[in-house]
Amino acid sequence: MTEQKVDTPKPILYTYFRSSCSGRIRAALNLKGIPYEPRYVNLLTEEQNSEEHLKLNPNGKVPVLIIDGLQLTQSMAILEYLEETRPEPALLPSRSDPARRAVVRSISDIIAADVQPVQNLGVLRRLPADGRKPWGRWVVDNGFRAVEAILQKSAGRYCVGDQVTFADICVYGQMWNALRYEVDMKEYPILAGVYERLLELDAFRDALWINQEDCPAEQRQHS
Amino acid sequence: MTEQKVDTPKPILYTYFRSSCSGRIRAALNLKGIPYEPRYVNLLTEEQNSEEHLKLNPNGKVPVLIIDGLQLTQSMAILEYLEETRPEPALLPSRSDPARRAVVRSISDIIAADVQPVQNLGVLRRLPADGRKPWGRWVVDNGFRAVEAILQKSAGRYCVGDQVTFADICVYGQMWNALRYEVDMKEYPILAGVYERLLELDAFRDALWINQEDCPAEQRQHS
Repeated sequence: MTEQKVDTPKPILYTYFRSSCSGRIRAALNLKGIPYEPRYVNLLTEEQNSEEHLKLNPNGKVPVLIIDGLQLTQSMAILEYLEETRPEPALLPSRSDPARRAVVRSISDIIAADVQPVQNLGVLRRLPADGRKPWGRWVVDNGFRAVEAILQKSAGRYCVGDQVTFADICVYGQMWNALRYEVDMKEYPILAGVYERLLELDAFRDALWINQEDCPAEQRQHS
Repeated sequence: MTEQKVDTPKPILYTYFRSSCSGRIRAALNLKGIPYEPRYVNLLTEEQNSEEHLKLNPNGKVPVLIIDGLQLTQSMAILEYLEETRPEPALLPSRSDPARRAVVRSISDIIAADVQPVQNLGVLRRLPADGRKPWGRWVVDNGFRAVEAILQKSAGRYCVGDQVTFADICVYGQMWNALRYEVDMKEYPILAGVYERLLELDAFRDALWINQEDCPAEQRQHS
């Protein structure tokens, strides 16, 4: 990480290519047309727990977004902040439809709370090496089963109707690990279809782990 | 669980006494003065995975809130819904202060994403019996360390200034397991103080696990 001033006109995003939570914010900034400067934090070499990074985020995680003179942490809190301060294009249904907003947030929270944190790098490292992939698959399957059931009623082109929302942003990042754990996506045809359609959008393609500058060339070749 | 109609004037809360996510919604309903009818779901006997409950929540979890003819799931999505539809008393800072709302949501998400789901019953059951308490303590310590650092700047009487917010609601429920895992709360004096002050409020006292009808008498005596 290089030095930076907190108060800067162009938002700075502390990010790691493989981090799905970073991917959520990369996608959201792209969708809202907010240019940003990426700063790379290597989770494998524990840069997230450096003294310097802990000053930005005492939780020792990415993403951190420096915007409007603020240091914002926790990806779902950042999404809500962006939606409140840059409402267009909207990534939540209109305020006049709180029921639909609740469906979006419910799908998002299944991924953001019940799936992602239970299979992230910090947790996997506490497990025996040969138990990591089955654990990851178990966690993702539980979450995706629930999301797929909700999508049977809610989905259109995307998770909730035809609007790209927080729910899609969360599903999108989680898919990277689902594929890594070899989750059988034939079990989740609606989810798989949504992911395919998201990847047709520049905002999501550009935010993919494989398209980040901190993604090592060798991992790009093997994907 | 007993039979119920989805469309009912008095909200119904599917809850389990020890579930901190249920506790969040019990507290929020109390704080907002919304009377509700509790329906008890015993997580130890896997009622949450019964066919009947999966119809209410395909994610097989509590809480589920039946309100306004809707079936709402995921506690953070429910909190946002309640705030959008019953704004008084407010459990988030005013919309004119998105930065402060972001601090509240950031603290909330540390608990709701990085702590609670990583040490819940479903996860602990996958671990060797003698590894459960150390795992729980490790997870809570990581989260509480981050929250305590944020509270050094944000706290007043409660987590963010003198207003009770989502952040307090999340901290409140997590304290139950922190105490169970014998987390050393002397390490987190601001958090400990906030919890003490929350318990001075009827809304939080009434929502405590020990004050629920489904709490077995024997557990009450031993607490």
